[in-house]
Amino acid sequence: MDGFLDDTTDLLRRTPQVLRALLAGAPASWTDSPDVEGGWRPRDVVGHLISAELDNYRSRVEHVLAHGASQPFEPFDRFAHVDREPGRPLDELLDRFAELRSENVDRLATLVTGGADLERRGRHPSLGEVTVRELLATWAVHDLDHVSQVFAGMAGSHDADVGPWKAYLGILLRRDDPAAIPG
Amino acid sequence: MDGFLDDTTDLLRRTPQVLRALLAGAPASWTDSPDVEGGWRPRDVVGHLISAELDNYRSRVEHVLAHGASQPFEPFDRFAHVDREPGRPLDELLDRFAELRSENVDRLATLVTGGADLERRGRHPSLGEVTVRELLATWAVHDLDHVSQVFAGMAGSHDADVGPWKAYLGILLRRDDPAAIPG
Repeated sequence: MDGFLDDTTDLLRRTPQVLRALLAGAPASWTDSPDVEGGWRPRDVVGHLISAELDNYRSRVEHVLAHGASQPFEPFDRFAHVDREPGRPLDELLDRFAELRSENVDRLATLVTGGADLERRGRHPSLGEVTVRELLATWAVHDLDHVSQVFAGMAGSHDADVGPWKAYLGILLRRDDPAAIPG
Repeated sequence: MDGFLDDTTDLLRRTPQVLRALLAGAPASWTDSPDVEGGWRPRDVVGHLISAELDNYRSRVEHVLAHGASQPFEPFDRFAHVDREPGRPLDELLDRFAELRSENVDRLATLVTGGADLERRGRHPSLGEVTVRELLATWAVHDLDHVSQVFAGMAGSHDADVGPWKAYLGILLRRDDPAAIPG
């Protein structure tokens, strides 16, 4: 299976550990800012990752294996976390994410067992035909995308503290202007 | 001292753990791509963070405390890693960074011991007068900026694997166009 499934699983298992190393017990001075104005704080990102474990990737793998491309996936609610866990402490969200991720990756190993499974085709409600391989790669890159958003929020919490060094810090400049280039 | 030093130190101590959780023993399929074309692979980023431990933040704190704003800091070589460790395995770089960071944060606790130290002024060779507080905040945000670059490289390694989902993945779209907005 050319290493793809093992390597993807490796990344999926790392993400909860990365988030804990970054955020578990972290001071609120680092964790209360969104990535951009009106965007997501770290706790919103972790909430969204929990949503994806509950309703997106594992369910969609099962959907493809059961229905192929004959029925599209259910659309995924990107804001489900807003109503689900408004006051839950960040550390509890990290634990919940780790628990769900572990269950889902264990389950994945029983669902996708050979290279032919990776080429199975499903139907995304907007994007059209997709393969299980694309779905799994997206699961992992979706992690990277959102954890990166946590870094932007954490950096933003200290925007005012770095003084003139902001000119060299792309992660801060891009919060104001996505195309900004550090000096 | 309003928590600033403790909270900054907290972040500085996390970064080596975050990088290990993300990269130690990781498959090369995730770690061999740069963040943007011509940019840095994860190993280059870790090499640059090692450079900053060797020649930048801790040294500059010492410089301010010894000389105030009377002498500018030495300029920092952002590419020192290129010649220093061309073939060193990524896992060794992670260990080296963790070791240097731990030493520097321990040293910091002996250098900056009260709120007045944070307001001491030094002189950056290009940016002019800066405070120790700004220097320490920059040390931490510089970590966030560069670790975020690691995520972009890791995502980029799987750009071709996500198929049509790329349209939703800002971390991939921005590698091609920094101002791209996910669909």
